[in-house]
Amino acid sequence: MAKIAGIFAPIPTPFIDGRIAYDKLKENLSWWGDSSLTGIVVMGSNGEFVFLNENEKEKLIGFVRENFRPDKTLIAGTACESTQETIRLTKRAAELGADAALVVTPHYYKGGMTNDALKKYYFDIADASDVPVLLYNMPNNTGLNMSSQLVIELSSHPNIAGIKDSSGNIVQISEIISGVRPDFSVFAGSASFLLPSLVMGAVGGTMATANILPDACADVQRLFETGRLDEARKLQLKLLPINRAVTSLWGVAGLKAAMDLLGHFGGEPALPLLPLKKPQKEEIKRLLVEFGALG
Amino acid sequence: MAKIAGIFAPIPTPFIDGRIAYDKLKENLSWWGDSSLTGIVVMGSNGEFVFLNENEKEKLIGFVRENFRPDKTLIAGTACESTQETIRLTKRAAELGADAALVVTPHYYKGGMTNDALKKYYFDIADASDVPVLLYNMPNNTGLNMSSQLVIELSSHPNIAGIKDSSGNIVQISEIISGVRPDFSVFAGSASFLLPSLVMGAVGGTMATANILPDACADVQRLFETGRLDEARKLQLKLLPINRAVTSLWGVAGLKAAMDLLGHFGGEPALPLLPLKKPQKEEIKRLLVEFGALG
Amino acid sequence: MAKIAGIFAPIPTPFIDGRIAYDKLKENLSWWGDSSLTGIVVMGSNGEFVFLNENEKEKLIGFVRENFRPDKTLIAGTACESTQETIRLTKRAAELGADAALVVTPHYYKGGMTNDALKKYYFDIADASDVPVLLYNMPNNTGLNMSSQLVIELSSHPNIAGIKDSSGNIVQISEIISGVRPDFSVFAGSASFLLPSLVMGAVGGTMATANILPDACADVQRLFETGRLDEARKLQLKLLPINRAVTSLWGVAGLKAAMDLLGHFGGEPALPLLPLKKPQKEEIKRLLVEFGALG
Amino acid sequence: MAKIAGIFAPIPTPFIDGRIAYDKLKENLSWWGDSSLTGIVVMGSNGEFVFLNENEKEKLIGFVRENFRPDKTLIAGTACESTQETIRLTKRAAELGADAALVVTPHYYKGGMTNDALKKYYFDIADASDVPVLLYNMPNNTGLNMSSQLVIELSSHPNIAGIKDSSGNIVQISEIISGVRPDFSVFAGSASFLLPSLVMGAVGGTMATANILPDACADVQRLFETGRLDEARKLQLKLLPINRAVTSLWGVAGLKAAMDLLGHFGGEPALPLLPLKKPQKEEIKRLLVEFGALG
Repeated sequence: MAKIAGIFAPIPTPFIDGRIAYDKLKENLSWWGDSSLTGIVVMGSNGEFVFLNENEKEKLIGFVRENFRPDKTLIAGTACESTQETIRLTKRAAELGADAALVVTPHYYKGGMTNDALKKYYFDIADASDVPVLLYNMPNNTGLNMSSQLVIELSSHPNIAGIKDSSGNIVQISEIISGVRPDFSVFAGSASFLLPSLVMGAVGGTMATANILPDACADVQRLFETGRLDEARKLQLKLLPINRAVTSLWGVAGLKAAMDLLGHFGGEPALPLLPLKKPQKEEIKRLLVEFGALG
Repeated sequence: MAKIAGIFAPIPTPFIDGRIAYDKLKENLSWWGDSSLTGIVVMGSNGEFVFLNENEKEKLIGFVRENFRPDKTLIAGTACESTQETIRLTKRAAELGADAALVVTPHYYKGGMTNDALKKYYFDIADASDVPVLLYNMPNNTGLNMSSQLVIELSSHPNIAGIKDSSGNIVQISEIISGVRPDFSVFAGSASFLLPSLVMGAVGGTMATANILPDACADVQRLFETGRLDEARKLQLKLLPINRAVTSLWGVAGLKAAMDLLGHFGGEPALPLLPLKKPQKEEIKRLLVEFGALG
Repeated sequence: MAKIAGIFAPIPTPFIDGRIAYDKLKENLSWWGDSSLTGIVVMGSNGEFVFLNENEKEKLIGFVRENFRPDKTLIAGTACESTQETIRLTKRAAELGADAALVVTPHYYKGGMTNDALKKYYFDIADASDVPVLLYNMPNNTGLNMSSQLVIELSSHPNIAGIKDSSGNIVQISEIISGVRPDFSVFAGSASFLLPSLVMGAVGGTMATANILPDACADVQRLFETGRLDEARKLQLKLLPINRAVTSLWGVAGLKAAMDLLGHFGGEPALPLLPLKKPQKEEIKRLLVEFGALG
Repeated sequence: MAKIAGIFAPIPTPFIDGRIAYDKLKENLSWWGDSSLTGIVVMGSNGEFVFLNENEKEKLIGFVRENFRPDKTLIAGTACESTQETIRLTKRAAELGADAALVVTPHYYKGGMTNDALKKYYFDIADASDVPVLLYNMPNNTGLNMSSQLVIELSSHPNIAGIKDSSGNIVQISEIISGVRPDFSVFAGSASFLLPSLVMGAVGGTMATANILPDACADVQRLFETGRLDEARKLQLKLLPINRAVTSLWGVAGLKAAMDLLGHFGGEPALPLLPLKKPQKEEIKRLLVEFGALG
């Protein structure tokens, strides 16, 4: 497989009455397929993967692969807390057509997740997986950070192909880039630090905002790669407020509200996540108008 | 149901070759049944519940109920991240004979777990559950703390019967006791602060060390309740080092090693948790000898 | 010197127009002297010691010693960030009549405050000091915690006489008590965990609330020591809300407002600390009335 | 005054036998004066300002101004915990020739340092100061972070001229740049994120590594400003290991060891900071050789 690179959207999972709304998902997939995205991530953090049961997870991966443009890349989030279950789901995802697996750190037993434990975990997954494995560092959700030194050690495994780092720690991202092999892909985990990451050597991003503004996110990378740094910076700065609303501020609920406002299907997150209230939705609307995405 | 009180062991789940070792579990259940424990918790944090798949969870609860002394209380950990799945498992646990459900806070979407979200979550579970619900505050694992004010508000629901607070924050525990209704049960979540909690009004504890030293843990409560405070304090202080080894220091791996050393079955934790190395096991042995639990 | 024990008030420093109001302080000292307090701490955290310049510090210690009942114990906070300055001020405090020095951990260079650095710091101070040194662990202000193991190692120095632990971590306090020499004094650093600390072996407390409710704080200890544990618990629980208002919630500004309400002089904290606003003062009043300290 | 920009070294304060070694400092000042630095900061975090007494502080500022190239900019760290003392020292620094004052957030009373308190603090300082005030956000030392929103509000004061942000949070730095007035100077607070900060619109950096590798730090900015982004990135990545050794890893002690190795005077930090041990010094040497700064 060639080095994975570009802009990916970690897609939200649409629910109606507590069930996955596959018809709505199909429409969204069609829209994302027509955008500038390199690909999508199913069952990332924005996909509310922790809320899905085992049957739903398998069905969802298969459905997405069948209904997403075959020439675009599909990454599946396959982490469970246990090594055994993660391997099972990762192998199943490959069978169902995923091009790579994104595996967030196990985290319930924080005290036990030493570097040795995480190394064995990721090496075991990578040994067993039929598709490349991407590390996923998401300290805001997991309460755990993978150090640059650990990531560099993990990058020695030929089937560990890259990392999505959502820490926002640009020094850590820089250290990782300094130490990994040349074909190891480092992705910014949020649109809020896409340009700085690209400048330091990242190859793209996988980020909530790419769901709602896929072309703008891709433009940041295109402008950077064609040497138009000033324009890239302006667009990067312009993305900050709406990105914040759909990530650190209101998370999945904000992202889904933005999807709805843009004429796609967002719907409500699964409980216990609460949907946005009206004034919050209006603030999202204001930010989308300010950005120019809504008239 | 009468107010739940006393000493509970959150039992470890024994594994052999990645599968639950039911025969070993049966022997352990028999031993715990003969001890001074009021009851046990199946699928608590020490039960590695996050590593079990859906089938294993149901089978495990049923097996434990069938093989544990029927006159003792069985609490089942039933939290999933989603409200819907937690309700499903809680109802199933009740059918399988659990006397109460212990529900740790959802925590992957930390930013979304506002007091409003947690209130709706626990009220939804308590409305749907056929057995009393116990809150479970475990910030070391979840990265989230439930404030005393939130717990007090939750205690207004008649089917929320108590809390296991593993925060170790004695002020928070005191504030909770001050504010909840008289029949709401507050449990110390670790043997390391059992006596201080009892002094402030807790009704017992549910804690790792009760698996290996059930009678000593029960003795702390008995000595306290019979006014022998000096003896209770001495025993409480004596419990600190071994408790630390099987909780904050080495967690489930330490607990399982201690089970093995005491002639019961502990075995190895499920991966990615690593088993103890030899010097660590020897330290556990030293602590058990020092305590007087091993010759 | 005999083992230090009992209830101490870490007194606030009264300011008028940015200067220490010595006449007001004299009146307060007279009131505290007539109370059940064992003694006071001048220049503790509630004394806003970080706001005082070098001249003010020396003058303040001398004034307090001259105007406080000579048969009661005076402890002086003498920590500066540097070893050299701390030694200088500790020696000066002894000359000015302080009975002991309370020394909070240096903390600006958190990364450099290893156990080795803190050990050398406290041993250097204790070697040089003409009065006993008390450790002061105050993580909420310093961002640093002293582990029980470190405190136990520090307690080997004969001129380190005890610790004020404001962490509120009852397990840590218990571990310290388990490991230190018998004449090492452990003090609860807040009224919110006084009784649990006494139960585990603490010898008293030094705490904000003792400034405004000295007799109630002393009563908790008296009731505990005379075996009236139920009454001690009731009083301990009753102290929680007002204690919270003058510590974690509103700090020094809350404490000073409470002083004013009780007919003593509190005044405003020094800038940048802001005084309470009216609704906050009314809440303090409500809590004092609820406690029975105000009519 | 024109907008402040460029690379600044927050100089270490040399000590011999607990006293400032002015002759050594003079030699260092001469070397820094001849480098590519725009200027220096006296009494920043690397200057161990918290260890200096009031006399030393004033004398040090005056000495540095007299012995540093008059055509280069001198910034003085003037923060004390109290508003009153900070104003006094800031005014004195201006009299002694400092061109600007760098004021770290007060932090001992973390709970009281609300946005309102910090706003009044900085506005009071800026109103009183005869030279421009630079904000200084240093969460690793203070345990407090200034949000981008707060910084933007503070930037409305005409005498608040910029910020040194040492948080390393590139999103926060980007948000600040988006919201402040055009002539407000944002400085990277560490060499580890200099290039990403410049890309997003920072005007320079003030950072430990500029003390030992002033020309390399200035080169990053020069390469960036002349459009040689690839070379800037390579140099930025090359700076990471040595920067880490003299900041997050070993702090002031590491910085002083590197000064010594490079043939200038570093010496030991003031106690309680401990000097490096031999293997640590050898690691610093190895990193300097690897960088090409030592033969």
